[in-house]
Amino acid sequence: MSSSIETTAGRRGRLVTFEGPEGGGKTTQARFLAEALREAGLTVLTTREPGGTPLGEIVRKILQNDLAGEAPCDAAEALLFCASRAQLCRNVIAPALERGEWVVLDRFTDSTLAYQGYGRGFSVDTLRTLNEFATGEVKPDLTILLDIPVKDGLSRALARSGSKDRIESAPTEFHERLRGGYLELAASEPERFETISAAGTPDEVRARVRDAVRRHLGI
Amino acid sequence: MSSSIETTAGRRGRLVTFEGPEGGGKTTQARFLAEALREAGLTVLTTREPGGTPLGEIVRKILQNDLAGEAPCDAAEALLFCASRAQLCRNVIAPALERGEWVVLDRFTDSTLAYQGYGRGFSVDTLRTLNEFATGEVKPDLTILLDIPVKDGLSRALARSGSKDRIESAPTEFHERLRGGYLELAASEPERFETISAAGTPDEVRARVRDAVRRHLGI
Repeated sequence: MSSSIETTAGRRGRLVTFEGPEGGGKTTQARFLAEALREAGLTVLTTREPGGTPLGEIVRKILQNDLAGEAPCDAAEALLFCASRAQLCRNVIAPALERGEWVVLDRFTDSTLAYQGYGRGFSVDTLRTLNEFATGEVKPDLTILLDIPVKDGLSRALARSGSKDRIESAPTEFHERLRGGYLELAASEPERFETISAAGTPDEVRARVRDAVRRHLGI
Repeated sequence: MSSSIETTAGRRGRLVTFEGPEGGGKTTQARFLAEALREAGLTVLTTREPGGTPLGEIVRKILQNDLAGEAPCDAAEALLFCASRAQLCRNVIAPALERGEWVVLDRFTDSTLAYQGYGRGFSVDTLRTLNEFATGEVKPDLTILLDIPVKDGLSRALARSGSKDRIESAPTEFHERLRGGYLELAASEPERFETISAAGTPDEVRARVRDAVRRHLGI
């Protein structure tokens, strides 16, 4: 990891990903960070997973059960997430990083490990292989884990959406495994992860995230 | 695999897959074999890959570039094939085998190893991991490799379709690697593979396939 970030021509950009259980404010904080980085003079790309490419948006509809008329089985679900990710990495993220742009993502590879691995019980090692196959050379420079107790997170998610979706209505044990999985992933790669409490107001969390990015990437 | 299968092991169906380079007559021979097995009193399911489920048929359209408006990158292509395969195995093939039916497939897991591995250069070991993730407990009892020299196979495929598709128009070296890959896969698992020459008339090949199935599966 380089300690000094300079926006000179040809300098590779940085990839920052937001991860964590439901209701941690990932989408809001990813937007806040992108704004702050733009104010600092950087070119910032934000996109979504699954999606972000024509192919990925079709895959997103399949995953939301809006296109095929049947839900994907658990294995197909994981493989479809990775297919969307592969297209996004090759066609969008890698070229942006090569142009020196920064990329901020709301969920990435760790979501697959947490949801399909710790949550649904697939082998985390096998899912890592799938992720690496999908992402190729693209790796996050910094992953911000927005941690929140399960009960608080689900309350927030419910207040936001008004109705429980498929993931949010899963049993509490599922969400506990998920949160525990995220904390384990963060502990195993402290050089990549910053674990941040999602407690408090969005502005309070924003300040914590901004500090973490400065500390980790120097900008 | 559920314990009810183990206790009725004699009733479990069999999975026969057809593999091989372009122009070997896989589709025709799979149909012939299904007919012969039905005449022998078996219930036989035939389906296609990618496809065979509502989700798989949507994935098929994405792979044929008819839906997303862009071609999948090589990694997304492999992952999409596996997603379609996962849905087919869980929702169609495994239940059919449990009911004691036979399943005959025109292409399956070895196509991924041959095309994406030997053909496009992805790690065959990684692709095996993807395949195993997709198929779960479903494994072919017999794989018939219809082998044909590249030049002869491409001539046949061209005569059949009238125009070269994306795969058929790939350089000859690609097809040579593919054929070599298939022969290597067959040599590494002689207990599963029967390699059969696709030379001669469809009826001549049909007789060879029928002999191989009797020899291998006793029916």
